[in-house]
Amino acid sequence: MVEGKQLTRIGLAGLAVMGQNLALNIAEKGFPISVYNRTTSKVDETVERAKKEGDLPLFGFRDPESFVNSIQKPRVIIMLVKAGAPVDETIKTLSAYMEKGDCIIDGGNEWYENTERREKAMAELGLLYLGMGVSGGEEGARHGPSLMPGGSFEAYKYIEDILLKVAAQVPDSGPCVTYVSKGGSGNFVKMIHNGIEYGDMQLIAEAYDVLKSVGKLTNEELQNVFTEWNKGELLSFLIEITADIFGIKDDKGDGYLVDKVLDKTGMKGTGKWTVQQAADLSVAAPTIEERVEAAKVFKSGGFGVQSNQAVDKQKLIDDVRQALYASKICSYAQGMNLIRAKSIEKGWDLKLGELARIWKGGCIIRAVFLDRIKKAYDRNADLANLLVDPEFAKEIVDRQSAWRRVVCLAINSGISTPGMSSSLAYFDSYRRERLPANLVQAQRDYFGAHTYERIDMEGSFHTEWFKIAKQSKI
Amino acid sequence: MVEGKQLTRIGLAGLAVMGQNLALNIAEKGFPISVYNRTTSKVDETVERAKKEGDLPLFGFRDPESFVNSIQKPRVIIMLVKAGAPVDETIKTLSAYMEKGDCIIDGGNEWYENTERREKAMAELGLLYLGMGVSGGEEGARHGPSLMPGGSFEAYKYIEDILLKVAAQVPDSGPCVTYVSKGGSGNFVKMIHNGIEYGDMQLIAEAYDVLKSVGKLTNEELQNVFTEWNKGELLSFLIEITADIFGIKDDKGDGYLVDKVLDKTGMKGTGKWTVQQAADLSVAAPTIEERVEAAKVFKSGGFGVQSNQAVDKQKLIDDVRQALYASKICSYAQGMNLIRAKSIEKGWDLKLGELARIWKGGCIIRAVFLDRIKKAYDRNADLANLLVDPEFAKEIVDRQSAWRRVVCLAINSGISTPGMSSSLAYFDSYRRERLPANLVQAQRDYFGAHTYERIDMEGSFHTEWFKIAKQSKI
Repeated sequence: MVEGKQLTRIGLAGLAVMGQNLALNIAEKGFPISVYNRTTSKVDETVERAKKEGDLPLFGFRDPESFVNSIQKPRVIIMLVKAGAPVDETIKTLSAYMEKGDCIIDGGNEWYENTERREKAMAELGLLYLGMGVSGGEEGARHGPSLMPGGSFEAYKYIEDILLKVAAQVPDSGPCVTYVSKGGSGNFVKMIHNGIEYGDMQLIAEAYDVLKSVGKLTNEELQNVFTEWNKGELLSFLIEITADIFGIKDDKGDGYLVDKVLDKTGMKGTGKWTVQQAADLSVAAPTIEERVEAAKVFKSGGFGVQSNQAVDKQKLIDDVRQALYASKICSYAQGMNLIRAKSIEKGWDLKLGELARIWKGGCIIRAVFLDRIKKAYDRNADLANLLVDPEFAKEIVDRQSAWRRVVCLAINSGISTPGMSSSLAYFDSYRRERLPANLVQAQRDYFGAHTYERIDMEGSFHTEWFKIAKQSKI
Repeated sequence: MVEGKQLTRIGLAGLAVMGQNLALNIAEKGFPISVYNRTTSKVDETVERAKKEGDLPLFGFRDPESFVNSIQKPRVIIMLVKAGAPVDETIKTLSAYMEKGDCIIDGGNEWYENTERREKAMAELGLLYLGMGVSGGEEGARHGPSLMPGGSFEAYKYIEDILLKVAAQVPDSGPCVTYVSKGGSGNFVKMIHNGIEYGDMQLIAEAYDVLKSVGKLTNEELQNVFTEWNKGELLSFLIEITADIFGIKDDKGDGYLVDKVLDKTGMKGTGKWTVQQAADLSVAAPTIEERVEAAKVFKSGGFGVQSNQAVDKQKLIDDVRQALYASKICSYAQGMNLIRAKSIEKGWDLKLGELARIWKGGCIIRAVFLDRIKKAYDRNADLANLLVDPEFAKEIVDRQSAWRRVVCLAINSGISTPGMSSSLAYFDSYRRERLPANLVQAQRDYFGAHTYERIDMEGSFHTEWFKIAKQSKI
């Protein structure tokens, strides 16, 4: 078709696996696509795959000019390159050949402020810009991701028909894509999504830790527990694959593979930007060598994991399930409220229920739980916090005894459940009328004359604490 | 003296209270100083104060050129202006009149990378640059702060004699100043210091919360407890002022003032940059109105602070003291290790014991505890973590039962102690040989082909988890 002077519908630049897969997905849905990559072997690889995977309408280009010229106007080009400088370079390369009204879409995990900076710079050239979160990993990109496009609404409209077909399709709920809002909103929402995903994995790991280290469950029992959990309120992709993982034997030795996997902690990439990652900084991230050393120091100090208590396994499993679910509610409440706060700050007017809807398919956090969140926002679009939605409030109240039992059991067993503990702290500080921050305000006024407010009258006050205290000591 | 053509020793630009006080401190120590401020009324104010506070050798200037020219060469000028753009503007204004070999010092709370950027830009003009953390608030600036200068060593040497006299003086330990290292090291260390300060205040607030809400201690009892604590291992400025605070009556009504202070949460300024602040983001920071609303929702859900347990007050006080001290060790261990990690990354070769020494006076976190930290690094300069220093390890082991009791008591009373809980999680994850992160690695390899390492052999591995699980289900 390009050969016959016919133009393609859309272009994609950056052909690592994610880019290749998304391009193939678009082609498979019937939209002729041009692809380009600086390292040309990747172009050949993608063209090859397009042939093998069903003679898809995908056309490779080895130089940016012919790539841009092969696309119908107004041209739309999706970039899937590393965040930061590579994005700026790609924009520079491509925009040289683009014309007024054309559009570039960044499909990577970019810091939302960079997207806003670029959108402005592009506008000066008469070009449109979108920052689009793409979730679901390589599988999602190929067969249906969750898409979070934000930026130019005009540009979104150009390609809405493509996105609606390319995104994951959820029965009764539609394609997992929506126009998020202007500016860097798409990237921001994706960042929080990633933080929520990381939080889910952390909470599941803690549930596993308590069941294994305190409850002494075998991998077989763990597989059964997670399989069972996947039939109820916890039904989700992550619980499902966790059940699978416990069933897999080591092909290089005896026993189960999960026990041979190194317990490396820490994240990279977008994780660094997310609040969950920030919170994670307060948790020790020592090297494994350091931990082994420390374990020796504290064993000789008379401390190890205490596990000689009698544990009722079935009760423990039930408690852990409830603790996991209650913690998950808090984790999502925090994530949604970070989005809400940013939306208010930036005037994005984000629809939280709609965001929950587009996460129901395609992405790693897909779960029946998201439908409950959507419904909570359907009931009240201005909900201050998921925790005060009547249904979630009831669920959390019903589960809080089990939740507190699990966190205390973990603490008394020398196991840390930082995610469950901090979720519980979130809940407890959210629902208390008064927090001890009055003391902090008083301290700051004492040593720094920061002033304070009062509970019983308007205004800003300062007290000469030191002088008064000194006088009373005489 | 300037009138008689004699030049001053140093200059200071930016005459808000911190700047005024530091300039008066320098003048009082016998170093003639020129001062400048864009809003000239501040110049008059400072000159007036210098007269009143003992005819100090301080000279005011109303334009930048005569200000710069009034200082002996090589000229050194300390800026105390708001971080960010105001610093850039002040540099621009002053450097126009400065000469090769002159030096500018930023005494504000600046992001360390900005200092590094400016140091490079200044070097191109032949000017030297220092970023100097100044701790201790207004009082400290006037009578002896803790100073953390980093950047050009040459510039540090110009004014070392001034800094040694201006800094807080601690008996047996010397002036609270040391050349930190090159680049933005002074600002970075100050940032972590602020995080530690915030952490100390948070932990004290939690101790107060448990004693008040669970132990039902009156303000009078609280004052006695903190006065008592200030005689032992917790001896510190913050514990001392906390005791004072509980003793102060409300001059606008009945009862104690601390109970009338509004419990506003959240921080601003440098706090935003610190890790403690980042961790704090994982804790709810709802508005007070939201909390009051939520308290209603969850009270009607059958939940309030449970306080009908019998509590042994004396035992509780003793437990809380131990929990506070153990948490404090973890908080400082995290802070020192953030400094250590950055020092390794940047090649700063920071002396952690020396940093603990300069925090012993002048600043808000001053405490006997810092001397223990200094000694731990004296024993072993390469200590991987304060937790594995034999003395701290013993202290923490001795206190861990009380620590776990307090956190669990708080959890079961519906009170959150996020700082104490996350310190405990830090300890527990630091000292465990194996963490449940193997599951997270397996999950990431399952859905994203991220690969994993093994505990029993070298290399990077990938498993087709999904395929294997599917086969076994058939």
